[in-house]
Amino acid sequence: MREAHIVGAGQTPFGSFPDRSYRDLFAEAYAAAREAAPPGIESTAVDEVVLGTLGVGGRQIGLSAPAVTEHAGLHGVPCTRIENACASGGYAIREAVQAVQSGRAELVVAGGVEVMTDLSDDVAGWWLGVSGETAWERLTGTTFAGVYAQMASAYLDRYDVDREALSRVAVKNHDHGARNPDAHLGFPCSLEDCETAPTVADPLTLYHCCPTTDGAAAVLVASEELANSLEGPSVRIAGVGAGTDAVGLYQRESLTSIPAAARAAERAYDAAGIQPEDIDLAEVHDCFAIAELLAYEDLGFCERGGAASLLRSGETEADGDRPVNTSGGLKAKGHPIGATGAGQAVEAVEQLLGHAGDRQVADVERAILHNVGGSGGAAVVTVLERDAS
Amino acid sequence: MREAHIVGAGQTPFGSFPDRSYRDLFAEAYAAAREAAPPGIESTAVDEVVLGTLGVGGRQIGLSAPAVTEHAGLHGVPCTRIENACASGGYAIREAVQAVQSGRAELVVAGGVEVMTDLSDDVAGWWLGVSGETAWERLTGTTFAGVYAQMASAYLDRYDVDREALSRVAVKNHDHGARNPDAHLGFPCSLEDCETAPTVADPLTLYHCCPTTDGAAAVLVASEELANSLEGPSVRIAGVGAGTDAVGLYQRESLTSIPAAARAAERAYDAAGIQPEDIDLAEVHDCFAIAELLAYEDLGFCERGGAASLLRSGETEADGDRPVNTSGGLKAKGHPIGATGAGQAVEAVEQLLGHAGDRQVADVERAILHNVGGSGGAAVVTVLERDAS
Repeated sequence: MREAHIVGAGQTPFGSFPDRSYRDLFAEAYAAAREAAPPGIESTAVDEVVLGTLGVGGRQIGLSAPAVTEHAGLHGVPCTRIENACASGGYAIREAVQAVQSGRAELVVAGGVEVMTDLSDDVAGWWLGVSGETAWERLTGTTFAGVYAQMASAYLDRYDVDREALSRVAVKNHDHGARNPDAHLGFPCSLEDCETAPTVADPLTLYHCCPTTDGAAAVLVASEELANSLEGPSVRIAGVGAGTDAVGLYQRESLTSIPAAARAAERAYDAAGIQPEDIDLAEVHDCFAIAELLAYEDLGFCERGGAASLLRSGETEADGDRPVNTSGGLKAKGHPIGATGAGQAVEAVEQLLGHAGDRQVADVERAILHNVGGSGGAAVVTVLERDAS
Repeated sequence: MREAHIVGAGQTPFGSFPDRSYRDLFAEAYAAAREAAPPGIESTAVDEVVLGTLGVGGRQIGLSAPAVTEHAGLHGVPCTRIENACASGGYAIREAVQAVQSGRAELVVAGGVEVMTDLSDDVAGWWLGVSGETAWERLTGTTFAGVYAQMASAYLDRYDVDREALSRVAVKNHDHGARNPDAHLGFPCSLEDCETAPTVADPLTLYHCCPTTDGAAAVLVASEELANSLEGPSVRIAGVGAGTDAVGLYQRESLTSIPAAARAAERAYDAAGIQPEDIDLAEVHDCFAIAELLAYEDLGFCERGGAASLLRSGETEADGDRPVNTSGGLKAKGHPIGATGAGQAVEAVEQLLGHAGDRQVADVERAILHNVGGSGGAAVVTVLERDAS
């Protein structure tokens, strides 16, 4: 199976841009990805565009892929929209890898976009809610915060962990996000801020929940041959794994893990031929603080029930042995649904290539991306490696 | 690049099933596809599910792929939703082919589903309208019938063709559909019926427009190795081509063709190494009668402006040299948006394998599928060949 590489990655700032169009945001991210790519890429035609989006905020529910493709200046290039809720961006990259591996494409643009903040509060809630299970969650009034609150309650109870562990996730990720110029909430917060913030869904307070964010991100996925023909190092996509599960919590085998993510991780490690201990840096899907703790365990960074201790040890902080969410994560960088998975790739590529500025971590050779749809109905995990050749 | 085959294809009846769930419909189509597959397939695990849908009628906007995958009994199998409006089903098959070609999958379930008829008239119109260009079409009140009416007007004017040509498309496809037990509108109609029906958007009358339909269709896409290990003939996917264009008519280079479909056809013919004259049978996207005339030309079955003459010659009738829409087409079989492209494959596979019952056409060795999203923002064309090995 031939290899796929990322030869360019870029994003818009993540934030509140109610006046900007989804097409404009995606075009900016694509331009940034091209800007970040080595010279020589200009002469290579794009074979395919894969767009991940939940639905561009309702502005164009059908055919948003051709709409962004046209606007990005890629008239006539075949394109497809991929949707697996909050994991749409990660799945877009997976499809791009597949297009390259099939031999059909040499250069694919994969990314995502969402516009969220121009929606009224009611509609934004609905819009997010539509990715929850419909019959037994959404129509009974259960929000995503409510779903993750149930997972958090179950976890804290099962492993006898204090809510403070959730707050530590938020404090860490805000600390990281404060160094990220593209972060939506680029400011630090304290444990006290987290604990005294209004409760959204017990035990989750406002600081345990990611914001509603606009933004776009894109990567250029190239064949090995194309990547090798360009100057300078690139990033090899060493393995991708996907996993699926029941959409509703009530059908899940566990509330204290996300089995789809664990399955996706296992497949990604297998594909890359590595173990969890080989990972230097991770971007994980911390839509709610509990999700980062579950990610540590689903990715095999620690045993079941060990996430709070791992966090407290400092290992996952920016200056720790294996930093997690140096971008600020969904919590502080923001969560523009379809763009999130591609945004994770942007952070990892910058870290792997030494372009992460104030956030740069030393000696990053291998990174992992963990992108979850809904409360775990779908997940995709991707291993990236620095390729110095 | 390794080959992909279709080793099983099945569908629900197309019709009005407001009380049925999208999950139930997809599961029925998948079961029918398995039922149609040769013995020996039971022991092969499904590696991937690709679902094409505009949005399952709003019942589950995000994560509908995991929802149908679970319900079809494929717990944990990686899955992705593909959306390119009315071409979603055809693109789902294209993605399945790519998964097989990449070497990552041996057996992929690709298909589509839509539930439309439980929506109120207002919502159904909105739901369809969302795949039209938003700013200059939908928000100015232009429906899809209105968009295709503009294309019809331009075509009839440019080539000095009478509206009767549109009615002949409807008469032919209803005649075909009357032989299809799965057709939504399985009854014949006359030229007079078409001409005297209420006008929907001039020059299109009610009989020039496809119905609002519920249904699902699925195919099993297998690697060459797996297909060859099974008994009996299978259907080889000889070529797939995709094309994209501006979503709005106002940015299109032509109103009298669908350039995305023409580009997709060129790519599909190239991939299959064949010419239009090598095609024995076609299923084309006749969402409105004008679209079938444009399809003849975009597929290269005749010169520009020659479609009405070709139709009148009888060549595209069931007993003609190259029948088009033996299923009844979108016009009479029906158009459950995301299922339509996969439903075209079901008809072609049945014809190629000699399983088409009262509709069976003699000597079908090669068929083509033509599936268009919106008014031509995206299109996918697929060439299928009977493989007797």
